[in-house]
Amino acid sequence: MQLFIGNKNYSTWSLRAWYLMSKFNMDFTEEQLVLDTPEFYKTLSTRFDVQKVPALIDGGLHVWDSLAICEYINDAYLAGSAWPKDIAQRAKARSLSAEMHSGFMALRNEMPMNIRATRFVELSDTAKNDITRIDEIFTQQQADYPNAWLFGEFSIVDAMYAPIVLRLKTYQINLSEAATRYTEQVINCPVLQSWIKQALTETDIVECDEAGVDV
Amino acid sequence: MQLFIGNKNYSTWSLRAWYLMSKFNMDFTEEQLVLDTPEFYKTLSTRFDVQKVPALIDGGLHVWDSLAICEYINDAYLAGSAWPKDIAQRAKARSLSAEMHSGFMALRNEMPMNIRATRFVELSDTAKNDITRIDEIFTQQQADYPNAWLFGEFSIVDAMYAPIVLRLKTYQINLSEAATRYTEQVINCPVLQSWIKQALTETDIVECDEAGVDV
Repeated sequence: MQLFIGNKNYSTWSLRAWYLMSKFNMDFTEEQLVLDTPEFYKTLSTRFDVQKVPALIDGGLHVWDSLAICEYINDAYLAGSAWPKDIAQRAKARSLSAEMHSGFMALRNEMPMNIRATRFVELSDTAKNDITRIDEIFTQQQADYPNAWLFGEFSIVDAMYAPIVLRLKTYQINLSEAATRYTEQVINCPVLQSWIKQALTETDIVECDEAGVDV
Repeated sequence: MQLFIGNKNYSTWSLRAWYLMSKFNMDFTEEQLVLDTPEFYKTLSTRFDVQKVPALIDGGLHVWDSLAICEYINDAYLAGSAWPKDIAQRAKARSLSAEMHSGFMALRNEMPMNIRATRFVELSDTAKNDITRIDEIFTQQQADYPNAWLFGEFSIVDAMYAPIVLRLKTYQINLSEAATRYTEQVINCPVLQSWIKQALTETDIVECDEAGVDV
């Protein structure tokens, strides 16, 4: 399998698919492209209908979008084990994943992922509400699964929320104690650490993702 | 099961879950709320963490978000039959569904679903590109499955794209001949017709969804 991804410093959608596939030890090669360059669009347009990352090639099969790639890997290689076993927990994990996939727009716009930076941003009320909701989700799940992933074992929903954890760190947002325990566990995950380490070596700048002031 | 939905004239996300559940003859009661009213938020906040529709209650289980509800119904009641059987086709259907779930923002902002209206809107280039992509998807799938649903049999991806078909009608957007054949099939579906019929009886106005000029 070949997984096409963007800059590790900035590309939240890439991180989600890469994290899931790496955490489950999938055998894949990483094809990294620098976001928003002519090479990026040229490479993707020769292979895919949609010029976005992440995008996966598995033999003759093309899959695009972070959530669809996660569902495909779960379906084709993991016999469903990338979601919680219990149907009620699985439904909740899918609801939270979908909530992230189509939502949290203010937070995503005002706090772009920028792993190598430490910044301050003045947030809108809508973005503050997004953070309150994130805090609620992490706190609730820590109550159900103390000192563990969102649903006990690592699952797709943890991959979906990983970029948020990195944004919270860049912009130094404080959460409740329980929610902070979850974010620390995510950041200390060795697989995520290897992504972060590579992100820190990158030097390309994507201007629109450089929000806030250095602190 | 109880499915909470918004105004049938406007609520695209509600339509997706309702359409999937109705087309597969699920046994559910419809709990309709008028969008953006105090009653809407009050009713949802007593039952759900997220005050958005659609939202589903099934016994003690709460599921929110259109895509998560579709996946839940597929998982819990339909033994997987709401996605294509073939794994490559299923991966493509999930990619297209996810592409709709998180994308087409310009089209969605500039052409709000408004079933009872016939309007003209001046579209941005980004929205025009969205329409080109929709045309490409419908045309490709009609080539693979002539005069049929996107993947032959009705599946979740048809529910995900149904609101777009209704937007194209309201704003009188022309597509290719093959793509038009698909949109006509969707609009003629008796289950969708029953939604449309009820939408036409509604009189509540949601100002932000009243885009364009009457023609």
